[in-house]
Amino acid sequence: MKKIGFIGIGVMGKSMVRNLLKAGFDLHIYTRTKSKAEELLNEGVTWHDNPAELAATVDVLITMVGYPSDVEELYLSEGGFLETMQPDTLAIDMTTSSPELAAQIAAEGIEAGIAVLDAPVSGGDIGAKNGTLSIMVGGDESAFQRAKPIFEALGESIILQGGAGSGQHTKMVNQIAIASNMIGVTEAIFYADKAGLDPERVLKSIAGGAAGSWSLSNLIPRVLKDDFSPGFFIKHFIKDMRIAIDEAKKMGIDLPGLILAEQMYQTLAERGLSEAGTQALIKYYN
Amino acid sequence: MKKIGFIGIGVMGKSMVRNLLKAGFDLHIYTRTKSKAEELLNEGVTWHDNPAELAATVDVLITMVGYPSDVEELYLSEGGFLETMQPDTLAIDMTTSSPELAAQIAAEGIEAGIAVLDAPVSGGDIGAKNGTLSIMVGGDESAFQRAKPIFEALGESIILQGGAGSGQHTKMVNQIAIASNMIGVTEAIFYADKAGLDPERVLKSIAGGAAGSWSLSNLIPRVLKDDFSPGFFIKHFIKDMRIAIDEAKKMGIDLPGLILAEQMYQTLAERGLSEAGTQALIKYYN
Repeated sequence: MKKIGFIGIGVMGKSMVRNLLKAGFDLHIYTRTKSKAEELLNEGVTWHDNPAELAATVDVLITMVGYPSDVEELYLSEGGFLETMQPDTLAIDMTTSSPELAAQIAAEGIEAGIAVLDAPVSGGDIGAKNGTLSIMVGGDESAFQRAKPIFEALGESIILQGGAGSGQHTKMVNQIAIASNMIGVTEAIFYADKAGLDPERVLKSIAGGAAGSWSLSNLIPRVLKDDFSPGFFIKHFIKDMRIAIDEAKKMGIDLPGLILAEQMYQTLAERGLSEAGTQALIKYYN
Repeated sequence: MKKIGFIGIGVMGKSMVRNLLKAGFDLHIYTRTKSKAEELLNEGVTWHDNPAELAATVDVLITMVGYPSDVEELYLSEGGFLETMQPDTLAIDMTTSSPELAAQIAAEGIEAGIAVLDAPVSGGDIGAKNGTLSIMVGGDESAFQRAKPIFEALGESIILQGGAGSGQHTKMVNQIAIASNMIGVTEAIFYADKAGLDPERVLKSIAGGAAGSWSLSNLIPRVLKDDFSPGFFIKHFIKDMRIAIDEAKKMGIDLPGLILAEQMYQTLAERGLSEAGTQALIKYYN
């Protein structure tokens, strides 16, 4: 039975650990606050006192943390995973993080004899719970094949997009498409309201046609119920958009829609809405 | 058998006339150039020498023309339809046009004893051909009920959105949602290409999830084939966005995503791309 280490048992990470347990893997975790792990420990997960011990124990290590700076510290710092993992093991970073950092970790991994994949996901907490995530993978074909049984326990769409960093780039593509569309669906429903229309009746006319999108059908109904609870946190969306903006700058390309969306969400963050869901963009207009 | 007059037999209008014929209505048309009508005349449509004669003959008059200025001239000019139609007839403007103008025509229609509906559509040439349009209607409930058998020959989603002008406002909501999403899907695929990803493989990862939209699934594949033929003309999209921008100004609301999209498409129009399909937005970036 393959030993999998898992760092980052937030809402999504917890569901992912459970799906891996269900698939028969031997799960090992470390968290800063042990109490947060208790539920999982009762379900058969093994606890380690520090990340180095965890890393030295497992065949495969999965990380699902907050920011690129966290990823960098976990893998590249002194005493980090690239030093503490055994040779011939596999590391999979599922954090949405920088493509450039992913490529760097993979390159340093080769020198340490550790295969590294970047494998960010989309599908949110529900996708994590139901094992229906879309997993966008960057790295070597051979490492991808080794990871496949693990990915199959977590997701439905599992696609190797290219070399190291390609998973992160693909996730950026996903976030760039969402960014401007959030502006579109929000402006649409804001206009509908100001024009004195019944927004729910309007959705019946437009959601199935050329204006249709996941955000229009899934997030705008929440706006109409004044439900701003996070399916996806504004603070995480801002992080993702900034990575994409940085990458675009390095490529020398200009993405005005993405820039506009980042500015709008930044304005909301400054108004204290970092922890709201992305559908709270309506508050920019109101 | 109800006599229906139809003004505006462009690509969509022609299909709509055929669906009305199929449903058993008696169709009457006028066009500036008779040769353009020949096909339909062979299929059983009746020709009139001038619009006034047409208007005086029919029980229901449908208009599906280019610009609000055309609509205004047809209905409100001296010798226009509100003067030439018989009392107790019904006029339906299916042009995407100004909500304010629609309300004005309806109000003047009441004085002339003519019921007027605004009923723009979405679904494009394919929806017109297959009788699967979404029809967004503004006007009186009684006029809507009279028009319903006609709408049912043309569309699938047929919704009375409110009083006069509400159909046009709903269509504006539709176009506002599309405007920023066109920026999003275009920037996404532009980034994918520049990042060295395989755009078709990227679509497999993202089109089914939170980034998914009609435009991503239907227009971006055309971009990848360098197919810029018009499903929807850039010149018509610019017209629609300008109506929406005007309405937003009157309401005192600011829609920066819509403004950005209109500027981008205007840049393309100045480069001679008015007759291209809206997916040609990629040329703004390239």
